Parts: sequence; C-alpha cells; structure tokens
Amino acid sequence: MTTLADLRTPALVLDRSVVARNTAAMRARATKHGVRLRPHLKTAKCVEVAKLATEGQFGGIAVSTLAEAEFFARHGFRDIIYAVGISPGKIADVIALRREGVELKVLTDDLGVARELADRARAAAVRLEAFIEIDCGYGRAGIEPDAPELVPIGKALNAPPFLSLAGVLTHAGQSYHTRGEVAVQSAAEEERASLIRAAARLKEAGLPCPTLSVGATPTATLGRSFEGVSELRPGNYVFYDLTMHSLGVCRLEDIAVSVLATVTGHHHKGGHILIDAGFMALSKDLGAHDFLPDAGLGFVMDERCRGRIPGLSVTGVSQEHGKIAVRSTQDYERLPVGARVRILPNHICATAATFSQYDVVEGPSDQVIERWARCGGW
Amino acid sequence: MTTLADLRTPALVLDRSVVARNTAAMRARATKHGVRLRPHLKTAKCVEVAKLATEGQFGGIAVSTLAEAEFFARHGFRDIIYAVGISPGKIADVIALRREGVELKVLTDDLGVARELADRARAAAVRLEAFIEIDCGYGRAGIEPDAPELVPIGKALNAPPFLSLAGVLTHAGQSYHTRGEVAVQSAAEEERASLIRAAARLKEAGLPCPTLSVGATPTATLGRSFEGVSELRPGNYVFYDLTMHSLGVCRLEDIAVSVLATVTGHHHKGGHILIDAGFMALSKDLGAHDFLPDAGLGFVMDERCRGRIPGLSVTGVSQEHGKIAVRSTQDYERLPVGARVRILPNHICATAATFSQYDVVEGPSDQVIERWARCGGW
Repeated sequence: MTTLADLRTPALVLDRSVVARNTAAMRARATKHGVRLRPHLKTAKCVEVAKLATEGQFGGIAVSTLAEAEFFARHGFRDIIYAVGISPGKIADVIALRREGVELKVLTDDLGVARELADRARAAAVRLEAFIEIDCGYGRAGIEPDAPELVPIGKALNAPPFLSLAGVLTHAGQSYHTRGEVAVQSAAEEERASLIRAAARLKEAGLPCPTLSVGATPTATLGRSFEGVSELRPGNYVFYDLTMHSLGVCRLEDIAVSVLATVTGHHHKGGHILIDAGFMALSKDLGAHDFLPDAGLGFVMDERCRGRIPGLSVTGVSQEHGKIAVRSTQDYERLPVGARVRILPNHICATAATFSQYDVVEGPSDQVIERWARCGGW
Repeated sequence: MTTLADLRTPALVLDRSVVARNTAAMRARATKHGVRLRPHLKTAKCVEVAKLATEGQFGGIAVSTLAEAEFFARHGFRDIIYAVGISPGKIADVIALRREGVELKVLTDDLGVARELADRARAAAVRLEAFIEIDCGYGRAGIEPDAPELVPIGKALNAPPFLSLAGVLTHAGQSYHTRGEVAVQSAAEEERASLIRAAARLKEAGLPCPTLSVGATPTATLGRSFEGVSELRPGNYVFYDLTMHSLGVCRLEDIAVSVLATVTGHHHKGGHILIDAGFMALSKDLGAHDFLPDAGLGFVMDERCRGRIPGLSVTGVSQEHGKIAVRSTQDYERLPVGARVRILPNHICATAATFSQYDVVEGPSDQVIERWARCGGW
C-alpha cells in the first residue's frame, strides 16, 4: 500500500471524501432550485472527479479546451459545452467531434464567427449548436443583454438544419472579486437577470432560446434564486481553494486538494524554511490576497492536512523553491529538514496546472488509495 | 508540411535559429573566460535544446527536479547536478540513478542532510558526490561563505570512499532584481567571490574543493571575470524572455520562444481584444515589471514574431482568456477575430510550464519543422 511518505514531492493530494461532500452539496443545491447541474471540468480535468460531479445529474459537462473535450469524450461524456469563445481555426476539430457523436456545443459573441459557423456546418453537413455568450457585468467576454448585436447573432446561429441556437450563457467572474453572501448574491442576480433579459429579446425576435446557462462557483454556492435559469455551470467548487475561502464561499475544511511538499533547508539568516514546492507546483497566483493577504502563496498545513501550522504561509516562490517565513525558532523545530507539509492552494486551477495526476486519500489518512490522471494541454 | 496556421492554439513556438545563436554566444563566453559551461535545463526541459547547449562542451548539465535527471539520463546525459537542495526522502532515487551509471551530484546546506548522505551512501555501497550550497547574497538557500557550518558540512561530505565533496555551488538570483551591466556585474562578482572564499576555507581545513559552480543567466551573460570559477550554470539564456530583456541582459530579438495565440473576440465596451492564451498558457508571472511595467503578461507580436504590434501587451489573464487592451479602433482592424499573434513571455520558465512540446520554426518562416518534447512533473 502506498502512503504519503512514499510519494515523491511535490505531489498533488486529493481528499476524495471532501470532493464527494462538495459535489453532493452542489447537487443538492441544484435539485433544490430545480436547475440542471453541468459541472465545469476546467478545474479538475479528471474523469473520476467528473463522475462524482455528474452523479445523479443529466451527464452534461463544460470544458475550457478542446483537449478536455476530446479527453472527456473518449471517456464516455457526450453532452459537452466548450465554454470559451470559439475561434474559426477550431471549428474543424468541433466538427470532427460532432461526427463522432459528441454533442459538443460552442459559444461566440461575434457575428462574423456566427456566420462562419453556419457556413461551415452547412458545408460539412454536420449539425452544430452554439450559445451566444453574454456579459453579465464581468467585462471579459460576451455581449451585454441589450447589445444591438444580440438578435443578429441569434439569427445567424439559427440556421436549421445544420446550425441551431442552443441558448445564452454567461459567467459572473465579478463574483471572484467581491466578498460575503450579500455581494455574491448580487452577482448571482446579475448572472440570472442578464440571461433572462437576453432570452426575452431573442424570443421577441422569434428565435428559440432553449438553454440559459449560468456558472461561477461563488454564485452557484451562495446564489438565492435561479428562477428562469436552465443550468448551473460551476467548476472550482469540486475542490474549492483559499480564494473561495477568502470570499466566504467555503470553509477551510472544504478545500479538497493540496500540495504535499518536503522541507529541504532552514535559512536562519533569511528567517525562512525552504520547501520543494515553488511556482511550478504552486503557481504565482495571488487570488486570495484581496481579502486574505495572509494567504501568501498558500497556507502551510500538517502532513495529514488536519490543520494549519499556526501562522505559517508560503511567503515566496522561485521555480522549485518555496519559502515559509518563520515566526519563531520553534517553527524550525516543528519543521526539520525532511519534514512534510501540505500547502492549501490560493487558486487550485493554477496550482494543479502542471501536475499530471492526483494522489488520492480519504480524509486525514496517510494511505494513498488511488491515482487519478489529469488531462493537460490544448 | 505543417505550418503555423495548422497549429491548434495556444502553442509554444521555438525559433531554433535563435536558440542556436544564444547557445553559441554563451559557449563563446565560457571559452573566452576559460570556464566550463554546464547548461541548467530547468528552463528548456528538452533533449534537443540540451544538445544544442552542450555542443562542444564537456557534456555536463544541471537540472531542477529528479524527473529531469531521469529524463536526461535516459537520453544519454551522464554528468548531472540536481541543483536544488536534496531532501532525505529523495536520496534513494539518487542512489538508483548512480547505480545506473549516472554521475548525479546533489547539494545541501544542512549538516544533518550531509551526515545522512554519508550514512546512506555507505549503507548502499554506492559512491555519491555532493556540493555545499553557498548563499552569495540572494538570500534564498545556502549558507554564507563565512558561516561556521561550512567546514563541518564539508567534513561530513568528505567521507571516502562512498561520499565525496564535489565543491561549492551558488546562484546569484539577486541579479534578476537589478538592472544594467554595472549592477549585474556586481552580482557576478558576489557569485565568484563567495565561492572563492568558501573554497579557501575548505582548503584551509584540509578538505578538497574540486569544483566552483556559479550560475544565473544575467551574471553569466554580462559578468566580467570568472577567474577561479570552474563552471557556469545558466539556464534561461537558451531562450531569454522579457524579464531578461528588462534587465538589459538580452535584446528583444534574442527571445527564442513565444506563445502562438488566436483572437477569439472583441470586447468593445471593455476596450480589449480576447485571445485564447490565458494563465494556463502564459502564467501570471510579472517578472519583467520592476523595470518594464509595459510588459503586462507579454508583448504582442505579429504571427511570424517579426515585431511587436505597436503598444500592445497582454493586459489581463484568466484561465483560458487573455485580454489585450486596445489603443485605438485600428487595433481591432489589425487583429480581427481569428487572427493570430505571438506573445513574448515575461518569464519563460513559468510560461513553458504547462506545455508538453515545442513547435519548432526557423526564423520568421511559417513552416513548423519539428516538434520537441518537454519533460514535466517531478
């Protein structure tokens, strides 16, 4: 049996019991609100997590890359939204997946791309489905629900029999920069209202708008009403992280994935302990800093991840070195060279990026029960 | 023949002619200064780049992970320094590589680890070699050349026949935070002087100190004297990046690797163009910002990487989205949806991290002549 002590560090450790609890809680929320749950697998990039997250649901997922779409399709997932604006160069790969029977749906906020989708679907004689991406206030991608382009894009995408308008889709990314239940609920309402408004305009123009898809972990976790919405599309919630904790969206014990690292040195003059997890293992993401500057590049937990070592965070990173500023000489005694710690990530999507697998444990046990592969690349 | 237009974006594009020029220039510097060149392959993680970088040299390399050591050993590299402080849990893997005939050398700055290396080498009846890591002013790892522990660690590592003291090793990481020739040369002098001092103390104590190994790209590129030093161990120079450019260490045209990305949308209200390279493809590294805040998350170049699109940088990233703030409406015309750009990285070690391969071109050609694999993980 493999134990934590057998793992070469840094290693990405996943607590299955926490993932199961997080996915069950979101499932319960979706059921309670009468909406479908379509987990966004950009965070987990893992079949076993996808199975936990889609359990008891309709089986649909969202992904952020074509590589993920192909990976999950190979593992039997059939209803997939590629939830990043499609560029013309990627349409051929979408058509190839559709030909294999994968109901891969795409999105755009651009009239030219909408027309190209229609042309390419017709030329290939393959049925495509596309969402219009709506900007609900995040200001990244999508058009506003009242934008004059909405109906023209809708008309371009409503080109039966080969292209159909799947609906409208949005992501309240602004909820990552606000704190507490009230603020997050207001972002959730922006998400919902923007899609209802866009859908109403499309329907007024005689266009179909079967699906209204919203999704962000804070709004899905704390949102009050999803009336009129068809589906929730959160991703991070399967694992959560210090950023979500800093926003009041989860408890520390809801964070399911951490980085196992080993102490490699004590630098007394600098006043820090060195570990073998640098930016390759942790990333440089400071997402938790708006509301939790103490997060550093991650909280330092004991090896079994039962609790934080009081006051300790990763305070600096280079490629393969992490620094933990000590608070007293007792910290050196507590963490001798060779000792192991677990680092709770600031932003798990970035932290997990360079790992090819999860080492799976169950609660605070030191037994590694399984290894789950991650899909990488594009 | 594959062309840039055939690549699924984001893709990591390597210009072989630039790598060949950078590696030839560093080789010429090492020859001129009468020191050995031991390229640090933590940046490239690639056999083909390693071959270019070690051409005409003694064949030694440095690596930052055991996974890299194993990868390069499988490809015939025999003289390898694992240039991150060794932790006790990794000694068994080092012994396994030594048993396969790989001259893998390790380093430590800790007396307990030095003693453990001696015990483990003797118990395994395998010859190990270890450096003492010296802190030349960077303040990350290593002991100072005048530290009282120096000689005790040296004595612990000098335990023939199974453990030998390979010498002293340092890295002037402080040179990444200083600008211009004079400042970098001063860091180079700190690097050199610290090792000469440490070696002198070891020799006074009757200990051998065969190798004095320095290495950082700024000091190796601009340092004035390497007298008394045995070898240079720079890594980033094979590719360079905007951080190195910002320090005055390289020209823009010396940057060998960039990210090919596609425009996926125009967000007129936000005043930005969206590309399909976010933090997964570019990282969130802001290493160039001290001296080149305009770097953003990377300069935007034309598709063939012949020049910067005037004034444009990546100004924001989320997982798979990059934002390019426009300066005028002409930028939208210049970069329509579907257009392709190349992004010069802030910090190539971080940018390359999630890619499993390089698509290799030669100069501003659009022909992709080869694909070179990267080693990942730990």
